[in-house]
Amino acid sequence: MRDLREAVSAAAATPGAFADRVQARVAALGSVAVLGLDPDLRLMPPDLLRRARDRSGDLQELAAWAFRELGLALIDAAADLAVAVKAQAACYERYGAAGMAALADTVAYARAAGMLAIVDGKRGDIAETMAAYGDAYLGEAAWEGLEARPFDADAMTISPYLGGDVVAPLLGLCASRGKGLFCLVRTSNPSAADLQRLQLADGSTVAEAVADLVSALNAGVPRPAASRFGPVGAVVAANLADSDEAGRLRRRLDSALILAPGFGAQGGSAEQVRPLFCEHGAGLLVTASRSLIYAYRRPELAGFEPAAACRHALTEMNRDLARVWPR
Amino acid sequence: MRDLREAVSAAAATPGAFADRVQARVAALGSVAVLGLDPDLRLMPPDLLRRARDRSGDLQELAAWAFRELGLALIDAAADLAVAVKAQAACYERYGAAGMAALADTVAYARAAGMLAIVDGKRGDIAETMAAYGDAYLGEAAWEGLEARPFDADAMTISPYLGGDVVAPLLGLCASRGKGLFCLVRTSNPSAADLQRLQLADGSTVAEAVADLVSALNAGVPRPAASRFGPVGAVVAANLADSDEAGRLRRRLDSALILAPGFGAQGGSAEQVRPLFCEHGAGLLVTASRSLIYAYRRPELAGFEPAAACRHALTEMNRDLARVWPR
Repeated sequence: MRDLREAVSAAAATPGAFADRVQARVAALGSVAVLGLDPDLRLMPPDLLRRARDRSGDLQELAAWAFRELGLALIDAAADLAVAVKAQAACYERYGAAGMAALADTVAYARAAGMLAIVDGKRGDIAETMAAYGDAYLGEAAWEGLEARPFDADAMTISPYLGGDVVAPLLGLCASRGKGLFCLVRTSNPSAADLQRLQLADGSTVAEAVADLVSALNAGVPRPAASRFGPVGAVVAANLADSDEAGRLRRRLDSALILAPGFGAQGGSAEQVRPLFCEHGAGLLVTASRSLIYAYRRPELAGFEPAAACRHALTEMNRDLARVWPR
Repeated sequence: MRDLREAVSAAAATPGAFADRVQARVAALGSVAVLGLDPDLRLMPPDLLRRARDRSGDLQELAAWAFRELGLALIDAAADLAVAVKAQAACYERYGAAGMAALADTVAYARAAGMLAIVDGKRGDIAETMAAYGDAYLGEAAWEGLEARPFDADAMTISPYLGGDVVAPLLGLCASRGKGLFCLVRTSNPSAADLQRLQLADGSTVAEAVADLVSALNAGVPRPAASRFGPVGAVVAANLADSDEAGRLRRRLDSALILAPGFGAQGGSAEQVRPLFCEHGAGLLVTASRSLIYAYRRPELAGFEPAAACRHALTEMNRDLARVWPR
């Protein structure tokens, strides 16, 4: 994998802004789809698991090997159909250091295949600690002439509970290395309303206040006149029940790319996604995970290899989204 | 390290509730101090760095070795003076899989030394993803007769932006394995007010609403009549400028242990910590990181080994806190 990583970093030596790279790839592929990698041993192909078990009796090593195998096969299948991969850090952390090594290899492989790679870890901490997360996931740890790029993804997800300090230490990496951020704004899990829908004294919701914070952070970053979006994107669920809410958030997030998870297995439909596009269909990436990576489990795809089933499901997803994509 | 981890897990076979284990150790040591491990190559002892550099030219391996060496030495020094270690995940993630292996070893070593171990990763995601984080940091990943305990700490910090779903999948581990959680409520970083101090329509702040959520979550968990605190603790900064705010949060968090970071180098004083104790001095852990682990850099401790300087600083910290501890 070392050669692969060197090739990737050479290619990334003079990157454009992350949002511009996203829009270029969206235009080239005619897709806004993101392949969500949430690998789970309990859902993986029996044949792959048998081979993994033959290789190691250590669960962490076994899982890491299986995740790498499946992830790389899915990336090969998706590279011309999906803009990016979004790897769920927790799934890899579940298997410790071995799992994290598989995450690093998966990110590097996706980038070598021409895809953008987003690490979905929802990190959020004080500025000094965010600098460490930035080194880990977007940048490089450098010390006395040595350097390491442990994960070196194109973008990472972040959580806003600690405020703008979560973003500030990462803006340098965004500018110098063409990296991007996606800040949690509005999710659709059952308890999302506990905090995000609380009403503030001024009548807006907490989620809307965070959307405004994202916009303010983008406004503070100089960017080329031709760049429609700033480096700080937003996570807004693809399956919000209230389409007015989605539209309101989109308007508040005028300078932000939106990353919308929850399409497919989590119930999001193309119609629900429609209000999250900007004018001319810009500014949106839509993620599906289980409906793509476990598509081979669908009865009508019985007999398909996981990669072939994923291609089939991605093609469907692109077709569904094309219907609502205002181009 | 394998034997060490087996010894730890055998000792933990019939654990008490996490909060009870905390209170027992607080009573035994006469301390509420937590050793925060935020290792940073730029601040480490030159001699240790020279030895690390002699061992490896790979920055990730070098850092992991140095973090393990320093962490284990500090744990030896602190085991009879501090209740727990709080390891900052980001510092280890900065060095990739090698760094994460050092985190796992550090947690195991702290527990073998009789300390409680808290992983400070501030994770917060949807329920399925939190189950993966729980497996990673508090529990075990099990599959077809195999199992792995990648980090197996006593407690982890979590971030509440996604609401109660962040906690729910972890409550089983809290009950069956005596684990604990600390949910971010109020931090003291410069931008903490961006979100936490927003005023809600009912007059409370977002942080107060999260405190109420923590209390509601604890109220939903059965616990022995003798247990003063539930499994869901709260992170409240040790250095809040407004002591009334600290007191208000303590009252709203009646059933919650509080973990208070920011003592020492981040400016928190014993007086500021006072309102965070419950009656009879229960329910509080106070964390210091840089002022302990880099104490050897203080001019008046020149010539001290890092471990000896850490003991000195911990003894001071315990003495300072004893002045305000209502026992």
